[in-house]
Amino acid sequence: MSDERIEAATANWAPRFTSQGVDPSDFGRITSGLERWEDWLDAWCANGDMHADLAREAEERGRLLSAGDAWVRAALSYHFAKFVWMVDLDKHRDASDRAVSAIRETHRLLDPTAERLEIPFEGAQMVANLRRPPGVERPPLVLLLPGLDSTKEEFFRWEDVFLARGMATVSLDGPGQGETGYHTHIRADYEVGPIALLDHLAGRSDLDLDLDRVGVVGVSLGGYYAPRTAAFEPRVKAVCAIGGAHSFGELIADRPSISRETFMHHSGAKDLDEAQAIANEMTLTGVLPKVTQPFLVIFGRQDRLVPYEHAERVAGEAPNAELVMYPEGNHVCNNIPYKYRPLAGDWMAEHLGEAAR
Amino acid sequence: MSDERIEAATANWAPRFTSQGVDPSDFGRITSGLERWEDWLDAWCANGDMHADLAREAEERGRLLSAGDAWVRAALSYHFAKFVWMVDLDKHRDASDRAVSAIRETHRLLDPTAERLEIPFEGAQMVANLRRPPGVERPPLVLLLPGLDSTKEEFFRWEDVFLARGMATVSLDGPGQGETGYHTHIRADYEVGPIALLDHLAGRSDLDLDLDRVGVVGVSLGGYYAPRTAAFEPRVKAVCAIGGAHSFGELIADRPSISRETFMHHSGAKDLDEAQAIANEMTLTGVLPKVTQPFLVIFGRQDRLVPYEHAERVAGEAPNAELVMYPEGNHVCNNIPYKYRPLAGDWMAEHLGEAAR
Repeated sequence: MSDERIEAATANWAPRFTSQGVDPSDFGRITSGLERWEDWLDAWCANGDMHADLAREAEERGRLLSAGDAWVRAALSYHFAKFVWMVDLDKHRDASDRAVSAIRETHRLLDPTAERLEIPFEGAQMVANLRRPPGVERPPLVLLLPGLDSTKEEFFRWEDVFLARGMATVSLDGPGQGETGYHTHIRADYEVGPIALLDHLAGRSDLDLDLDRVGVVGVSLGGYYAPRTAAFEPRVKAVCAIGGAHSFGELIADRPSISRETFMHHSGAKDLDEAQAIANEMTLTGVLPKVTQPFLVIFGRQDRLVPYEHAERVAGEAPNAELVMYPEGNHVCNNIPYKYRPLAGDWMAEHLGEAAR
Repeated sequence: MSDERIEAATANWAPRFTSQGVDPSDFGRITSGLERWEDWLDAWCANGDMHADLAREAEERGRLLSAGDAWVRAALSYHFAKFVWMVDLDKHRDASDRAVSAIRETHRLLDPTAERLEIPFEGAQMVANLRRPPGVERPPLVLLLPGLDSTKEEFFRWEDVFLARGMATVSLDGPGQGETGYHTHIRADYEVGPIALLDHLAGRSDLDLDLDRVGVVGVSLGGYYAPRTAAFEPRVKAVCAIGGAHSFGELIADRPSISRETFMHHSGAKDLDEAQAIANEMTLTGVLPKVTQPFLVIFGRQDRLVPYEHAERVAGEAPNAELVMYPEGNHVCNNIPYKYRPLAGDWMAEHLGEAAR
């Protein structure tokens, strides 16, 4: 394994793959067999196809749980095939479409109450996946926001964390993300996406969601989007940011090349100068004082993509924030998923429960 | 990492840790930080203590799901601390007791219908953990048999595979295993354990188990115990062996030293000659023709602990056996858990369902 882009992808994100549900042996086999970054997408898509074949074979035999579980793994493989891989954008799009399709199969088999939401948004459409906790009437709702290179297809097991604690989830492809990103770009005022989503849900009383108890959780760059959403959307009652930056413009120059290329792709920047200019707008300066809701900031001091001082600034400038800094945590704390995931789920359940009183 | 015993433990069993529920980052951090096999137990027990602390802290805050999940991880850490570690038998026993205690906490928090069974057995007691699938009346029952170095405390997530498919489970510490092994030794006629268990359950109609639909699944050396049980116990209606040997005596000399020491400990052999003599008795020759039940043999051709030809002999000598040989599979196929685990669960559900007609 010699290609520095493969090194960057595995060194920065390996634990993220497994905490989202990729089998560790799959991860080891695929990445150790790669020599050129150019081959990354095909290798992961082949793994996705393998799991999709397992899914189809299981379903033919009536083994529906096994089939659904296999579709989750297929979706993750297709997703991670392209997440920071911008070598061939036709292949990127094809893998994205396959991930979307795999999650639809997952929902059909594992969670028939899941619903794909297609929301008119500035002449295009914004797409999100809604799931509801079994046996809970009028549950609170948590918006799960992806970051720079994550999408709603990465979040099936992340959604489970909140569903298991009695909350409904909407994983949102916002501006510049996933399917919505087919027609939109990253923007500093990302909150327009979640606000449009909540407006849409307000007209869907048939869903039986308690929109007086809405929380927002964002990971990585979503940790910038989440407090922005809280600042400008009073329907949000609690907010959690995990691994988020205070001011993204300070970071873009030091990113691994594959991450910078990903930002350029999703932001529509024509060159590095334009990318820097867009990133410079993405700051929480002046925004955080407006985040008056309870705000949990989770961060890992060993984060190599976002210096931990960003989290200290975020928590320091918001009036109602609590900072949980894990000394051993990496980016998004995915090397200690058993700490941050239950914490985010429990904290959100407690705060959305209280909001109902 | 220089100690050949650490190398042996990680090279042969790494994927087993994660497929049973150890976090891959925990595994990497602990094993890469070790230089001497002597320190293995303390390092894993410290990890168990860390998860136990997370569990207690979560429970104090009323976060019961998080607490229960943390106890599962604590149990696995304590279990793997000692599984093939025979350096200090007092420490071995202490870690075993902590694993047992952690699983009791797990049951209390995650599965209050779980029941610890203590069965009089040849002057001592045999211990097993019963769990039942939610919402299923009079479910079929699957006995889950450990092998040389596994115990019922390793099986909480393995039990979930069968519970999710509508079957009750009993994870059994049989002769020479886990708590039962405190007072008993490995024996070639292991089936006396499962038979005593089924006799005991026959007197427990309050449990509402369908004892006309009993299956047995064994992993590793349990893949020898399972067909033995089927051969001598007609109440068993279907049997599955994963990674099992045909004749253990052929293998003991080539085992890694830590595995051989583990066999000597659990068999009570005073020296290698006696260990070899005991292992020689552990053969399925002459037994397999009696296994007339449907019999699924799952095996990985890359197994370095049991040559794959053993599985071919097992399947060839049993009248009603089906062999699934995965070309890429390692010992117990734990590098492809997403293949063998759903297969074992689905196959067993289908066969125990049919037996009910």
